[in-house]
Amino acid sequence: MTPAQQAMLADLSHRLDRAGIVTDPALIAPWERDWRGRWHGRSPALLAPASTGDVVAIVQAAARHRVSLVPQGGNSSMVAGATPPEDGSALILSLRRMNRIRALGEAMVVAEAGVVLQTLHTAALETERRFPLTLGARGSATIGGLVSTNAGGTQVLRFGTMRGLVLGVEAVLADGSVHDGLAALAKDNRGYSLDQLLIGAEGTLAVVTAAALKLVPAVAARAVAWAGVADPEAALALLRRFQRAGDGVESFEILPAETLAAALAHRPGARAPLAGAHRWHLLIEATAASAAAEPPAAFVERVLGPALADGLVEDATIAASEAQAEAFWALRDSLSDAERATGPAAQHDIAVPVDAMPRFMIEAAAACEARFPGTHASGFGHLGDGNIHFHVRAPAHVRDAADRDRWYAEEAPAISRFVHDLVTAAGGTISAEHGIGQMKRAELARLAPPGRLAALAAIKVALDPLGILNPGKLLAPVPPAQ
Amino acid sequence: MTPAQQAMLADLSHRLDRAGIVTDPALIAPWERDWRGRWHGRSPALLAPASTGDVVAIVQAAARHRVSLVPQGGNSSMVAGATPPEDGSALILSLRRMNRIRALGEAMVVAEAGVVLQTLHTAALETERRFPLTLGARGSATIGGLVSTNAGGTQVLRFGTMRGLVLGVEAVLADGSVHDGLAALAKDNRGYSLDQLLIGAEGTLAVVTAAALKLVPAVAARAVAWAGVADPEAALALLRRFQRAGDGVESFEILPAETLAAALAHRPGARAPLAGAHRWHLLIEATAASAAAEPPAAFVERVLGPALADGLVEDATIAASEAQAEAFWALRDSLSDAERATGPAAQHDIAVPVDAMPRFMIEAAAACEARFPGTHASGFGHLGDGNIHFHVRAPAHVRDAADRDRWYAEEAPAISRFVHDLVTAAGGTISAEHGIGQMKRAELARLAPPGRLAALAAIKVALDPLGILNPGKLLAPVPPAQ
Repeated sequence: MTPAQQAMLADLSHRLDRAGIVTDPALIAPWERDWRGRWHGRSPALLAPASTGDVVAIVQAAARHRVSLVPQGGNSSMVAGATPPEDGSALILSLRRMNRIRALGEAMVVAEAGVVLQTLHTAALETERRFPLTLGARGSATIGGLVSTNAGGTQVLRFGTMRGLVLGVEAVLADGSVHDGLAALAKDNRGYSLDQLLIGAEGTLAVVTAAALKLVPAVAARAVAWAGVADPEAALALLRRFQRAGDGVESFEILPAETLAAALAHRPGARAPLAGAHRWHLLIEATAASAAAEPPAAFVERVLGPALADGLVEDATIAASEAQAEAFWALRDSLSDAERATGPAAQHDIAVPVDAMPRFMIEAAAACEARFPGTHASGFGHLGDGNIHFHVRAPAHVRDAADRDRWYAEEAPAISRFVHDLVTAAGGTISAEHGIGQMKRAELARLAPPGRLAALAAIKVALDPLGILNPGKLLAPVPPAQ
Repeated sequence: MTPAQQAMLADLSHRLDRAGIVTDPALIAPWERDWRGRWHGRSPALLAPASTGDVVAIVQAAARHRVSLVPQGGNSSMVAGATPPEDGSALILSLRRMNRIRALGEAMVVAEAGVVLQTLHTAALETERRFPLTLGARGSATIGGLVSTNAGGTQVLRFGTMRGLVLGVEAVLADGSVHDGLAALAKDNRGYSLDQLLIGAEGTLAVVTAAALKLVPAVAARAVAWAGVADPEAALALLRRFQRAGDGVESFEILPAETLAAALAHRPGARAPLAGAHRWHLLIEATAASAAAEPPAAFVERVLGPALADGLVEDATIAASEAQAEAFWALRDSLSDAERATGPAAQHDIAVPVDAMPRFMIEAAAACEARFPGTHASGFGHLGDGNIHFHVRAPAHVRDAADRDRWYAEEAPAISRFVHDLVTAAGGTISAEHGIGQMKRAELARLAPPGRLAALAAIKVALDPLGILNPGKLLAPVPPAQ
C-alpha cells in the first residue's frame, strides 16, 4: 500500500463503518479478477460505502490523496471494465452494500447502485410491475453497473437499452458534489444531460449511486416460439412481418444450428425444440400486459401461420406450457457457457444497422474462415437489435492449456482486428452492449474518428481532471493535473 | 463588421455559393430578434450553408478568426436561444437551407437540420408513417432546433421528448470535425454518447446538421375528448385510470376555466366544448395505430363512463367528427396567443414530478397572488408530463405600453424568481421544454447546484475551448482560450 493510500484509509476510518474498509487480501481477491478469469488486477483495499454520503467522503478523500478508484458492482463486466489495474495503484470502490430499493411506485422504481437486477425484478413483480431489461448475468449484475454500461440484453427490441429506461441518476462527481437526477422529471431542459452522459460512461466520469428506473405493467400473458429458417435474411423478413402486425414482440433471437447443437450438448437432458434439422433457429417471445389485449399466442400464430404456408419459415412451435417456454429460454441463456465449453474462441459483441445484419453474418463468417484457415466463425444473438455475438473458434488443433494461451495471445488479437475492421466498414460498432473497458480500449483508439476520441478525452478531463475515476478504462489514462 | 469578421467572410467567399453569405441588413433583420419581439440582437452577416461540408468550412473559419456563431433554425425559441448578442460580435449561422430529407424508411427518417417539423410530418404521412412529436410552432420550428432544445410538445406522454425520438445526430464539432451518429445503431457502447450530449445543448457544443429520427405507424384512428373536472387532483386521478386501462392516451392537457374563456374570446365563432361551467377542463387524445387494436373511442368511453358515473368527471364529450376534434385542438393551440392578448404576463415553462403537480398548481397560484397583489396566476398545459405553462398576469391597472414595459422590467423578474423558487423547492425545473437560452441564464446560475454548474461549464470549455458556438446561451460566456 502506498503512503497516499494509507493516509486516505486513515482519513476514511473516521467516516466509514467497520465493513466499509476491507484490507484482508482473501476477501479482496475475488474482486481483483474479471469473472472469466482472463484479467487480473491488484487492489490493496476494497471500500464498501453504505450510503451516498459515504461515497462522497471516499471520492473527496481520493481526490485529496490522489488515489484512484475502480467502481465495481457485480463484477460481471465482459470487457474487464471493473478490474483494477495491475500495479495496485487503485482501490476498489464496491457499491454492493448500497442495495436498498428506496421507492417503488407504479411507473418508477428508485434503486441504489448495489441492487442486483434479479432482486429488482422480483420486487417489481410483487407489485405487478416489471422492469423490462434482462440478461444472463441478472443474478449478479447490479443497477450501478447496468447504468454505467448502458446494458442491453434480450428485451431491447421493445423496451430499449438502459438509456431508455433510466429516468434519472444519482451520482457522485469527481469533485465530491452529488448530481441528483432522481426527481426524474419527464421534461427538464436545464442544460446538458448529466444523466445521459453518465449512462454508459463506465464509471470514468462519476460514481453512480442510485437510479430512477422506468417500470411497465407486469406481463399478463406471453407466447414463446421456436422457429427454423433457412438463413438470416428469412429471419429478418419474419421479424418485419411481426413488427407490421403489432408491437407485441419483445425478443427475437437468432442462432445457427451448430450453436444450438453446442447448447444441447452442454445441457444434459435438454431437447431440441424442433424435430427436423434447420440451418438457423429463432427464439421469439411476444407478450401482452393486459387481458384485454390480443393474446400473444394468437398474435404469434397470426404471423407464423402465413409464414409457414409461404415457406419463409421451415418449421415452428409455440411453447405449450410455461415449463416449455422456460426450457426454450434456458437453451438461449446457456449459449455463452456452451460456446465457451466448445473451446477457445475470439468473441465479439458487435452491431451493424439491422437491415445489414443478415448479409453481414454470412459474409463476415466466410471472410474470417478464409483469412484464418481452420477457424469456424458464426454469430448468434439479438437480430432485432442488429446486435450479435460473433465468435471465431480456434482451429481444432488448439487443445491444451499452452496452445490455448498462445492462441489467445498471438492469434485471437489479429482475428479481432479483422472482425472489427469488417464491422467498422459496415458502419457498425465494435461494442454493442458490453462497453470498452480495458479489453477494447486499443481497438477503440485504433478505429474511432480522431475528432470523436478527442471529444471523449476532453470530456473525461473536464469532469475528472485528477484522473481518479476508473483510470485506463474506455480511454488511456490521462496524466493527472496536479 | 470587425476586421476578423471581414477576413472570415473573405475566406468563406471561396467556399460558399452566392446564397451562402447574406450581408444585406434588410434580409438579416428578421433573424436578429426573437419571434416575440422581446429580444434584439445584431449580426453583420448571416451564413446559410447548403451542406454539412459548408458547415465544416464555416466552423473552421470561425475558429481561425475567433468569430462566434449563433446557430439558428426557425427562430421560434421561447428563451432567445437563437438571437445574436447585441454587440454584433457573432454571425448568424442559419441552417434553413439544409432542408433535405435524406432517407425515409419504415422505422427511421434522416432529416437535415433545416427541415421544418410540419414538412417532416407530411413526408412521413405520405408513407403511412408518423413522427410523433408536435407543437404549436410546427410550421416554423426546424429539426436542428428541435434536437438542440430537446423539444417536447403535446405527445410526450406517450412518445417522450426529442431525447427519446432522436436515434442519432450528425453535427459539426467546434474543432471542425464531424460527429456522424446517423447509422443510428440500436445498441452502441463506444463511450460517452455525443448524440445525447448534443440533444438539448442549445447549439453551444456543436452545430447539429442532421438527425436520424424514430418513426411510428401512422394513426389509424383517434378519439379526442373534452372533459370538465373540479380540480387538478381529479384530472390526475383520471389520467391514472386511463394509464391503467391501456397505453393509448397520448395527450392529456389541462386548462382552467378562465384560460378557456380567453381562448374562446380570442377565436370568434369558437364554441365551448361543454355546455355547463367547470372549474377545470381537459383535452384528451387517444390513438390506435392499427384497425386490429381496440378503437380509441371505445377505450376512452371505457374509462370516461365509470368516471362520469362516480363523479370524478363532471361532464365529458368525445368529438363526433374529425372537424370537431380539430376544433378542440384549435382551442388548445390558441392558448398561448389568447393568453398574450389578455395582457402582460410573466410566463413560466415549469415542471415538477407529475404526482406533485395538482397541488403545486393550486398552491403556487395562491402564493403568487398573495405575494403580488392584483396579479392572477394559473397554469395550463401538459399535466401528464408534470409540465405546465404557469402564467402570472399583471394587475388590471397595467394597461398602456409604458406601464407594460415598466411592469416587464420591474415587476415580472421578481415574480419569476418567486415562481422559480417555488418550483425548485418542489423538486422541479425552471425549464421543462423551452431551454435556458439568454432569458433564463441568470436564473439557472442562481438556482442550480454549484457542482452542476461547474460540470456544465467544464463540458462547454472541453468541447468549445474557443467559445465560438452560441456564446452566452445557457451559460455565461467563457473567456476564450487564445
